[in-house]
Amino acid sequence: MSMRAITTQTLGNDREPNQPTPNQPTLASAYQRVRAGTEHLSAPLSAEDQTAQSMQDASPTKWHRAHTTWFFEQFVLAVHDPSYVPDAQSSKLFNSYYNSVGTPFPRHQRGLLTRPSSAEVTTYRQRVDRAMVSLLRGDISTSLASIVVLGFHHEQQHQELLLTDVKHLLSHHPDQPAYMKVAAPPDADERPLTYARIPGACYRLGHAGKGFAFDNEGPLHDRLIDEFDIASRLVSEAEYQDFIDDGGYSRPELWLSAGWDAVRKHDWTAPLYWTASREQYLYTMNGARPLGRRSPVTHVSYYEADAYARWSDARLSTEFEWEVACRHLKETPPIGGGPALHPETQQTGADFFGSCWQWTQSDYAPYPRFRASPDAVGEYNGKFMSGQYVLRGSSALTPDGHARPTYRNFFPPTARWQFSGIRLARDVP
Amino acid sequence: MSMRAITTQTLGNDREPNQPTPNQPTLASAYQRVRAGTEHLSAPLSAEDQTAQSMQDASPTKWHRAHTTWFFEQFVLAVHDPSYVPDAQSSKLFNSYYNSVGTPFPRHQRGLLTRPSSAEVTTYRQRVDRAMVSLLRGDISTSLASIVVLGFHHEQQHQELLLTDVKHLLSHHPDQPAYMKVAAPPDADERPLTYARIPGACYRLGHAGKGFAFDNEGPLHDRLIDEFDIASRLVSEAEYQDFIDDGGYSRPELWLSAGWDAVRKHDWTAPLYWTASREQYLYTMNGARPLGRRSPVTHVSYYEADAYARWSDARLSTEFEWEVACRHLKETPPIGGGPALHPETQQTGADFFGSCWQWTQSDYAPYPRFRASPDAVGEYNGKFMSGQYVLRGSSALTPDGHARPTYRNFFPPTARWQFSGIRLARDVP
Amino acid sequence: MSMRAITTQTLGNDREPNQPTPNQPTLASAYQRVRAGTEHLSAPLSAEDQTAQSMQDASPTKWHRAHTTWFFEQFVLAVHDPSYVPDAQSSKLFNSYYNSVGTPFPRHQRGLLTRPSSAEVTTYRQRVDRAMVSLLRGDISTSLASIVVLGFHHEQQHQELLLTDVKHLLSHHPDQPAYMKVAAPPDADERPLTYARIPGACYRLGHAGKGFAFDNEGPLHDRLIDEFDIASRLVSEAEYQDFIDDGGYSRPELWLSAGWDAVRKHDWTAPLYWTASREQYLYTMNGARPLGRRSPVTHVSYYEADAYARWSDARLSTEFEWEVACRHLKETPPIGGGPALHPETQQTGADFFGSCWQWTQSDYAPYPRFRASPDAVGEYNGKFMSGQYVLRGSSALTPDGHARPTYRNFFPPTARWQFSGIRLARDVP
Amino acid sequence: MSMRAITTQTLGNDREPNQPTPNQPTLASAYQRVRAGTEHLSAPLSAEDQTAQSMQDASPTKWHRAHTTWFFEQFVLAVHDPSYVPDAQSSKLFNSYYNSVGTPFPRHQRGLLTRPSSAEVTTYRQRVDRAMVSLLRGDISTSLASIVVLGFHHEQQHQELLLTDVKHLLSHHPDQPAYMKVAAPPDADERPLTYARIPGACYRLGHAGKGFAFDNEGPLHDRLIDEFDIASRLVSEAEYQDFIDDGGYSRPELWLSAGWDAVRKHDWTAPLYWTASREQYLYTMNGARPLGRRSPVTHVSYYEADAYARWSDARLSTEFEWEVACRHLKETPPIGGGPALHPETQQTGADFFGSCWQWTQSDYAPYPRFRASPDAVGEYNGKFMSGQYVLRGSSALTPDGHARPTYRNFFPPTARWQFSGIRLARDVP
Repeated sequence: MSMRAITTQTLGNDREPNQPTPNQPTLASAYQRVRAGTEHLSAPLSAEDQTAQSMQDASPTKWHRAHTTWFFEQFVLAVHDPSYVPDAQSSKLFNSYYNSVGTPFPRHQRGLLTRPSSAEVTTYRQRVDRAMVSLLRGDISTSLASIVVLGFHHEQQHQELLLTDVKHLLSHHPDQPAYMKVAAPPDADERPLTYARIPGACYRLGHAGKGFAFDNEGPLHDRLIDEFDIASRLVSEAEYQDFIDDGGYSRPELWLSAGWDAVRKHDWTAPLYWTASREQYLYTMNGARPLGRRSPVTHVSYYEADAYARWSDARLSTEFEWEVACRHLKETPPIGGGPALHPETQQTGADFFGSCWQWTQSDYAPYPRFRASPDAVGEYNGKFMSGQYVLRGSSALTPDGHARPTYRNFFPPTARWQFSGIRLARDVP
Repeated sequence: MSMRAITTQTLGNDREPNQPTPNQPTLASAYQRVRAGTEHLSAPLSAEDQTAQSMQDASPTKWHRAHTTWFFEQFVLAVHDPSYVPDAQSSKLFNSYYNSVGTPFPRHQRGLLTRPSSAEVTTYRQRVDRAMVSLLRGDISTSLASIVVLGFHHEQQHQELLLTDVKHLLSHHPDQPAYMKVAAPPDADERPLTYARIPGACYRLGHAGKGFAFDNEGPLHDRLIDEFDIASRLVSEAEYQDFIDDGGYSRPELWLSAGWDAVRKHDWTAPLYWTASREQYLYTMNGARPLGRRSPVTHVSYYEADAYARWSDARLSTEFEWEVACRHLKETPPIGGGPALHPETQQTGADFFGSCWQWTQSDYAPYPRFRASPDAVGEYNGKFMSGQYVLRGSSALTPDGHARPTYRNFFPPTARWQFSGIRLARDVP
Repeated sequence: MSMRAITTQTLGNDREPNQPTPNQPTLASAYQRVRAGTEHLSAPLSAEDQTAQSMQDASPTKWHRAHTTWFFEQFVLAVHDPSYVPDAQSSKLFNSYYNSVGTPFPRHQRGLLTRPSSAEVTTYRQRVDRAMVSLLRGDISTSLASIVVLGFHHEQQHQELLLTDVKHLLSHHPDQPAYMKVAAPPDADERPLTYARIPGACYRLGHAGKGFAFDNEGPLHDRLIDEFDIASRLVSEAEYQDFIDDGGYSRPELWLSAGWDAVRKHDWTAPLYWTASREQYLYTMNGARPLGRRSPVTHVSYYEADAYARWSDARLSTEFEWEVACRHLKETPPIGGGPALHPETQQTGADFFGSCWQWTQSDYAPYPRFRASPDAVGEYNGKFMSGQYVLRGSSALTPDGHARPTYRNFFPPTARWQFSGIRLARDVP
Repeated sequence: MSMRAITTQTLGNDREPNQPTPNQPTLASAYQRVRAGTEHLSAPLSAEDQTAQSMQDASPTKWHRAHTTWFFEQFVLAVHDPSYVPDAQSSKLFNSYYNSVGTPFPRHQRGLLTRPSSAEVTTYRQRVDRAMVSLLRGDISTSLASIVVLGFHHEQQHQELLLTDVKHLLSHHPDQPAYMKVAAPPDADERPLTYARIPGACYRLGHAGKGFAFDNEGPLHDRLIDEFDIASRLVSEAEYQDFIDDGGYSRPELWLSAGWDAVRKHDWTAPLYWTASREQYLYTMNGARPLGRRSPVTHVSYYEADAYARWSDARLSTEFEWEVACRHLKETPPIGGGPALHPETQQTGADFFGSCWQWTQSDYAPYPRFRASPDAVGEYNGKFMSGQYVLRGSSALTPDGHARPTYRNFFPPTARWQFSGIRLARDVP
């Protein structure tokens, strides 16, 4: 038996969606496309909206716009463009957590950075963009291409965060204003939740092939997976309401001990953005709408996902099972259509991508033989490998081209402001 | 025995500076003058600067501008102008603490109110101003005049807070930007600190006469005051530096017990805005300048003022002694010249007004027979009479016409972001 | 006009209860009597009961017993008895807050001092007692007598704290065990709450005469007091229940702003030790009994006392009014009978002493010309003069001979574990 | 290739140390032996020592003694002995976290349970012991034997915690008293730290065979393990001192992000119980001794272990690698000799057992197909599977017969009061 054969050949690790390659026109235009995407998302937001920070975990829109720009300035232009004069302030203000290139501005005070203004950030972005496009139209080394493509994916991550963060901010306003007012689509009929059986085997996991991946998606390695069942769709709002109605938030036996502590500390009685005033409604980026639809429940913590699964006599999958199931079922990220602002009901599909990130029971840990890159960019992922759980898939807000079966998103188990949902799994008896 | 004779006649309670009276042209134009003052102070600040909140005790500029406007809308227009249609949002967002007219928006989240924008707040101010001016050009009842004049003084209080709050905000920026860049005047020669002897007597204290005063400045009442000595000027930066150099912040015997707790909890080693990096300098609203001048030390807490006094073998005065000394020495608030942005060195004068507020050893308590007004405006002062100390005088930022000998400012003993300084007093042996 | 004449002669400042004087047999036997009192109170408590600390404000019984002993060792024996060898550990462990004689052990960790054992503390007490009695049988200088008598009163203060602290500890046990099981006396008939009119005048206040007083009770000084009314008894449990039933704890307009913050922060809905399970009952040191009696309400914070007074359209008195009323009505502390463990209903009497300490609206501040003693004992009172309110009178737990009309007790406005009650006062219209 | 064959046969899962089996005399005498062990450990501690609680994570000795007794009362006697009358208080006071059998007393207040006394706890233990021994001398069903043996291992866990908790308590005393004064053995010569190569394979992991194991050690399952190197001994104090001297606690690049946060929040500059006053010494249960020996460093958090490994250009092993290495190297727990009170230098041996628990990089998660038991005892392990890391091996304090290669201990990554040390591992290039 050849483990290698089992996995590589049956799951098609090489068939990643195409990613930008170091072909000059492509890279420059890909750069412009990604950068324009950020500006497009910021466009509906006023200078004031772009400045405020609603909690330490969230950052101001303006800061996202400047930080992603600083990333190119610091790691590309300062290294590869001798003529470029870096902005005097940016490194003091917009370094997130790269201790090796300076002292980051305190994270919880990003909302106090009223200067530079949003307009000045636009100017900063334009200056860096001009230098970047000029650079990318010249000769491009492999190392340059590599860091630029990392910058694309870094910026795409911030595009999603920009939206989740501004949603969190706007939700504090008594009017709970919409980011963009759009009528919710009609609710769908109930799709029965069934399970697909995934065979046990020794699978090769992690990223392979030519496309881009973050360092944490490798190294490629083999792992034994038992036969298991995976749910055909995510848990719906209506189903989650049944859990609440059955006393889900008041029965300690359904919760991990740390989860039960969180329920009591934060007085959780429902997912984030569920509101019980007058009639029950849900705050979405498109405005408020009644609860109870067949849409996937979202904005749940790991602990809520875990408790729901226990109540359902099921469990969450591991991140490895998820990856195997995704490939076995030939699920692929949607291309085109652009981000929706809420994972509304779908008539079909298994929701592996484009709806909600899916909590797994796997803590965020390095793959075997993982070594963080020795340079500053090496701080990117490795140092966060403690106290977080992996989420797989992607959400309605994830930019086109940013999702893939090996992608490992991660958040602390109490985080609820991301578009996080629940996919059930089961042992095979 | 006639106590009345002793006090009233010798201290001239009636000689208050003139205040606006319910004469129509005067009231309307006074209204416009006060309102323009607020806009003048906000003018150097961007939309972003006006939105951020650096701590719970401070409010965004935009919020100050809207809240003072709401005060006129809620307590004047809604009562006296039947044709006025109140803004739908204002009461939800800009009520500070008047529980009797609705539920105030949480104070510590004012920086999350990105909407309405600064520009929309300007529009709101203009709409209320039009209605107010129109109203004030009609017949003006005594009760209308009274609440309008209260609104003037309320807005003037917020003008000073707007500046102290934005100073606190800007100080968090690594560049510590100036609110308005102005060169500090040259330092003055040292003025010796001497003491004036104030005779003991039964004094009549509190506000009398026709001018405006807050409810907490009355009722007029008699109080026995022992002979005491009062300092000829405020304590200087240079003198305060001697206290630090003598180990002032590491000697518990100099501090009240609660003060020593605060020193350790907050790691205080100097007044707020003193910075020890490279060379010692002071952050002022005009920009940074070297420390050690003959300017009054400011941004000290009550506990620091008290410890300095103990170290000097002196004490702080009571608020009653301060009022008596102020009148005995015929000190009066400066008129004209407008607010400076820092209490820089003066060549002459006793600094009772126009330099720094002066901590007294008196807790903020009601005068005998004080009763809060039964209506909403009655929440104005009375309910804060616990856990605060009285400061007397006025600061470089206090608007013209807002200061008077009976004025009682008050802050918690740990507050340092106000322009608070130290005037010494002594018992007569 | 002679202010002095008005006050001194009419209120009889000199008629204090007799105190121990520096006559040798008296002083030695008074010492033994006070010391035996502490041991008597500790007797019902096991070694375990004596060791635990239920909150930072409370101390273990064992610690009270050792600290009061250390006081005599440190301030008497170490100074006046050259042959005495101080205990090596005591100063490290049992110094409370005298920074000038060493570094106190952290207050919040007193419950971790399992060593020395209770039995060893008894041995320590006996060793110090032998040396003290021997010393007191010799020649006694005035300064020695003075510090010894201070030690008596210091120990008596701790006797009351020992009881309030152990009550707080035992209340955490699910069984809420009695310190000493005694049946509550029958409830009394309602005594109507009336008001006595106290004339306004210039009164001489503070301690005079030969008896002992703490430094904070002086200097003697004159103060103008307006005519006022004082209640004939304390507010009862039944009356306080009416306040609760009228929504007292949910109406912000009845509360000081800081008090309303405390209500919400601590979820206060009733005084401390009121329990709502099954039937309403009160935890007392004699065991639990039903609520609603005519006994004085106790274990209320300053904020609750203030809110109750506002609800009653009355107010709390100042500490000066209280002292004047007490003397005017010729109220004196009870002598004999020893401490009761709860202020149960009285058939008669005005409750100035021996029932509950009475919150006044006066913050704890120095009297005019007060100077703390320059030696270590000077830390006794002065440094706590910030953030506390004065309570007057005495409680059912106060030892015989410890109460007097000039006594100034003080606690932070949120403190509830002391036997603190409510006496109303009113302005005369 | 048969994975099953590879693992089962080469690693000898069945060769567990013998455990008590349901043979009556053995079980009754084993019961008495375990119970006597707890009393033996408590014997040096006074009633006061046994009552105090130094932090929420630690419990009083008395509570450990009562809780382990309650376990037998609740899960054995109440189920299997109809004649036994349970103690009225125990379930209220000594239930730790079994929500399904009542409401546990708040964990952080266990130190306030002064009643029952230590002596009464002894009586309680004796009463339960009599009933248990009588029961165990009769017919013993398999289910009875199973829960009784679980009780043994539960009590042994608490024996180790009893010691670590009382060490933490005593360390707060200024004298840092020894639990038992014993001279430290002489330091050993340096043993070079080498690495053993462990072959990669598909290993069968988890507990098999007849002996006792906790539910979390199963189910038995297969796992692919890459070839790796494991250190020949634990990291020593002297080596850890080199890390400190090299700036280990001030270089963020050496730390996980959450670890760096912990360093700054808790001001960590050395392991727990290292003291820098005058000369550097280490607090041990045998008293203080100088630092810098060849003894294993202990009382480090996961974050410190991880940072040390990164500084050493090595890593921690996974819990699976540890188990494989342990078996491959035929390491077994020591039998006999009883617990030492500190892991002092050893001349030989690899320290897998009997020195310090060893942090692994594995979060504490269920093995594949793990299901918690449906009854109350099912709360034992499963609900803690979040936010903790697995430690393998055993410590100097672990009771005889309690350690085995499959044992999974777990603590939060910030925990330092356990005897936790560092074993390095490396990838094979």
